[in-house]
Amino acid sequence: MSNTVITQDISHDAFAPFGDLVDISGEPDKIINQGLCGRYHDRAHFDFGPNCKGGLSLFNAEPRSLPYRLEMVERHPLCSQAFIPLHQNPFLVIVAEGQDDTPCKVHAFITKPGQAINFHRNIWHGVLTPLSAPGQFAVIDRVSEGDNLQEHWFAEPKIIAGQTA
Amino acid sequence: MSNTVITQDISHDAFAPFGDLVDISGEPDKIINQGLCGRYHDRAHFDFGPNCKGGLSLFNAEPRSLPYRLEMVERHPLCSQAFIPLHQNPFLVIVAEGQDDTPCKVHAFITKPGQAINFHRNIWHGVLTPLSAPGQFAVIDRVSEGDNLQEHWFAEPKIIAGQTA
Repeated sequence: MSNTVITQDISHDAFAPFGDLVDISGEPDKIINQGLCGRYHDRAHFDFGPNCKGGLSLFNAEPRSLPYRLEMVERHPLCSQAFIPLHQNPFLVIVAEGQDDTPCKVHAFITKPGQAINFHRNIWHGVLTPLSAPGQFAVIDRVSEGDNLQEHWFAEPKIIAGQTA
Repeated sequence: MSNTVITQDISHDAFAPFGDLVDISGEPDKIINQGLCGRYHDRAHFDFGPNCKGGLSLFNAEPRSLPYRLEMVERHPLCSQAFIPLHQNPFLVIVAEGQDDTPCKVHAFITKPGQAINFHRNIWHGVLTPLSAPGQFAVIDRVSEGDNLQEHWFAEPKIIAGQTA
């Protein structure tokens, strides 16, 4: 059915048009702390707008399940937004293509343990959708004031289907 | 023994002189996403220096155990530094009093699941010390260039003792 979107495992290449997949993969950029820690340096493109501030917030979201009924996507015209899980559970990441005012093709990704994501500014995306409890995430986005939320409600909801790892 | 520091459970008040304890406590500042998510807004004081950038890095650190032998503390004169666990395991947070060049009284805290911390700029602190695997953390600190690391090695190591929750 054209209205059904099948989830895929997230990967750096597949997610690149929408944002940054941030994880511990490959060699660290630097070994620190007397050899006991690897630093994977500066892995997200933060964008909070000129002379504006980013901040650290926490989100506590209700877990969802698959199949998931997607009625709406949103975007933030003024900033990037990072979702950092405070746990090792996979979560659902939904994005949509469309540079102008109308989102079109929807993509749905499942993360692996230890992976965070950072949506680039103005990318259409679903709200935070954990797939298990606790639904706790650190969020890095703009904390300066501004008209920073646009929503698009689909005439007919999409069904996001698939399996978690 | 004067050289032994007993760990304490971290709390907002006890940690306030050194930085921000960031967790989901109390009522959210805002309910978002059609009632399905609480936002605990802007809970850390980021400080990356004038006209300088903060970024998102990942640290992958070897787990330590208690008692822990503390030989050194460090500080970052140019930025704050947030440690955000990518898991629900408690970790050890070590700080030291001392505004000038010499750290003095050492304090050791144990976090609870879902808690992150943000050291304020120039606060003496121990390196990242997870107490169990995986030792994966998101780190928000300055990514602009600069001479941003000072270390202090103790003449006699401190012994950090206590129990995890």
